[in-house]
Amino acid sequence: MTPRIDALQYANWSEKIFRQMRAGSVDAVHVTITYHENFRETVLNIEAWNRWFEQFPDLIFQGFDARDIDLAHQTGRTAIFFGAQNPSCIEDDIGLVEVLHRLGLRFMQLTYNNQSLLASGCYEAMDTGLTRMGRAVVHEMNRVGLVVDMSHSGERSTLDAIAHSSRPIAITHANPSSWHPALRNKSDRVLRALAESGGMLGFSVYPHHLRGGGECTVAEFCEMVARTADLMGTGQIGIGTDLCQDQPDSVVDWMRAGRWTKSRDYGEGSSDNPGFPPMPEWFRDNRDFGQIADGLRAVGFSAEDVGAVMGGNWARFFADGFGAASSLRREAAQ
Amino acid sequence: MTPRIDALQYANWSEKIFRQMRAGSVDAVHVTITYHENFRETVLNIEAWNRWFEQFPDLIFQGFDARDIDLAHQTGRTAIFFGAQNPSCIEDDIGLVEVLHRLGLRFMQLTYNNQSLLASGCYEAMDTGLTRMGRAVVHEMNRVGLVVDMSHSGERSTLDAIAHSSRPIAITHANPSSWHPALRNKSDRVLRALAESGGMLGFSVYPHHLRGGGECTVAEFCEMVARTADLMGTGQIGIGTDLCQDQPDSVVDWMRAGRWTKSRDYGEGSSDNPGFPPMPEWFRDNRDFGQIADGLRAVGFSAEDVGAVMGGNWARFFADGFGAASSLRREAAQ
Repeated sequence: MTPRIDALQYANWSEKIFRQMRAGSVDAVHVTITYHENFRETVLNIEAWNRWFEQFPDLIFQGFDARDIDLAHQTGRTAIFFGAQNPSCIEDDIGLVEVLHRLGLRFMQLTYNNQSLLASGCYEAMDTGLTRMGRAVVHEMNRVGLVVDMSHSGERSTLDAIAHSSRPIAITHANPSSWHPALRNKSDRVLRALAESGGMLGFSVYPHHLRGGGECTVAEFCEMVARTADLMGTGQIGIGTDLCQDQPDSVVDWMRAGRWTKSRDYGEGSSDNPGFPPMPEWFRDNRDFGQIADGLRAVGFSAEDVGAVMGGNWARFFADGFGAASSLRREAAQ
Repeated sequence: MTPRIDALQYANWSEKIFRQMRAGSVDAVHVTITYHENFRETVLNIEAWNRWFEQFPDLIFQGFDARDIDLAHQTGRTAIFFGAQNPSCIEDDIGLVEVLHRLGLRFMQLTYNNQSLLASGCYEAMDTGLTRMGRAVVHEMNRVGLVVDMSHSGERSTLDAIAHSSRPIAITHANPSSWHPALRNKSDRVLRALAESGGMLGFSVYPHHLRGGGECTVAEFCEMVARTADLMGTGQIGIGTDLCQDQPDSVVDWMRAGRWTKSRDYGEGSSDNPGFPPMPEWFRDNRDFGQIADGLRAVGFSAEDVGAVMGGNWARFFADGFGAASSLRREAAQ
């Protein structure tokens, strides 16, 4: 089987959305569980997920390692993998890396737009690269199997993370800036370094990341995927839609402004376009993954490569990325 | 193999003590990781354990289910199972039961001497039995596989927990009050109800729980075990030494007074005997488990029953107690 995997969603979760995951045959989703929440608040969010797992056991369950993708496929459910879009959840405490990994955290962004204790976000004027704590935390994330995600980080910080991390990192949800020059999209230099180090890029369908915004066609999107495959290879790319379905605009305000400013921050939006932008008509929710797969076929991807991009590559990356470094060493020794 | 298991220790952990566990062939220990600490403070204690696991991988590792007892035996290490002696770690938040279980908590006392949000401790004048939250939390503990431990609870609360819990509970460290009438020891009525419900008693060698205190002989202790076997059966008893090795007296003050009083509380001690009492000479540390096993043989236990009391019974209880109720249901359906 080739699994179907989305490497980033942050929806206003509901039974409806979980049923749409099933309708779209989505075997695994990396969901954001926390932005600016501290550790205790992040645990409250995990508790909310635990209630959903208890409430909808026939639709979803928590994923801990790549075998859960197969289990999901076999049992007709969706495996939910946790991620953080900012390191607020570890506070100033490196010991929380292992604790959160034990609770199922599998991706953590070192920054979300701003400077963090670990690195610089893509909206800062100055990019520090990895800080002292950043280097220590990346080392610890490598040890336990928590994937470094640089989707919202600055160029220098991202190149630093790629160079410093002993295990491949991810940019779970962004597109090439050569295609659409948004601050959140990534330079060819970053994408090449990412691919050369075994890392993964997940293509975003969030309108601010698309040329033409919500008007971008599926053919244009898939053509962009094909050009990125020329740059990175077909083995290092996947989907990370950044689907923020059913969220009120108050949530995008929380993402952008957290508790770090009393002013309003528009992030990728603007004062005349402050809220969530409307999605392209060919990707409204989880039921539409087939449209991307069809679009990839239409621009010339082989059936095998479509499978790789729609989930096979992420499945391999999950298998390599989520275990403890010591268990990798043990397996290598056998 | 018959494993050797201690169902309660709270030592001032060090490499020396971990080596003594190995010297005593102790395959598994239930260690107390928290008393009056709130959730975040309990997580700090887990972080400290994670450092020890990282530092001494050839001596100890964290145990999550009963298979880890076998793994410990096979690899010549000791599996460390976490427990809480008070429910402060779940604060007023039932969702933390599952979160702490995921982090490896396998036992939780509903009370430590005092009234808690869940039940009454053995030093309270009035025993409420299980509170409203107590009943809800026991139900949740049953669901996830977190064992109810009533070692420090009052009589009525303990009988209530036995009756209300859908899964067998434990008294991990106490002796019969008919043998030594300490407030912390348990009545025959409680012990009978415990055994009839499939629960376990761990015999304590903490001097305040012994007839004659630290002067109690191993023969007297083992004779007490034999009389309790007459009452409860040989299948429902084990060892729970309550070893508090190398602790400064400030730690017994923390156990007894936490942050709940500005006065000094002497717990099982007294103003002329406020600190940790000296241990009996036949049980100073983990190297001395053989002396208890020999003592049990000497008072007439068969080799098989000695194995059951020294760890076999706890191993069976761990296997039944630590999994999710749903997985038990699935196995039963197969």
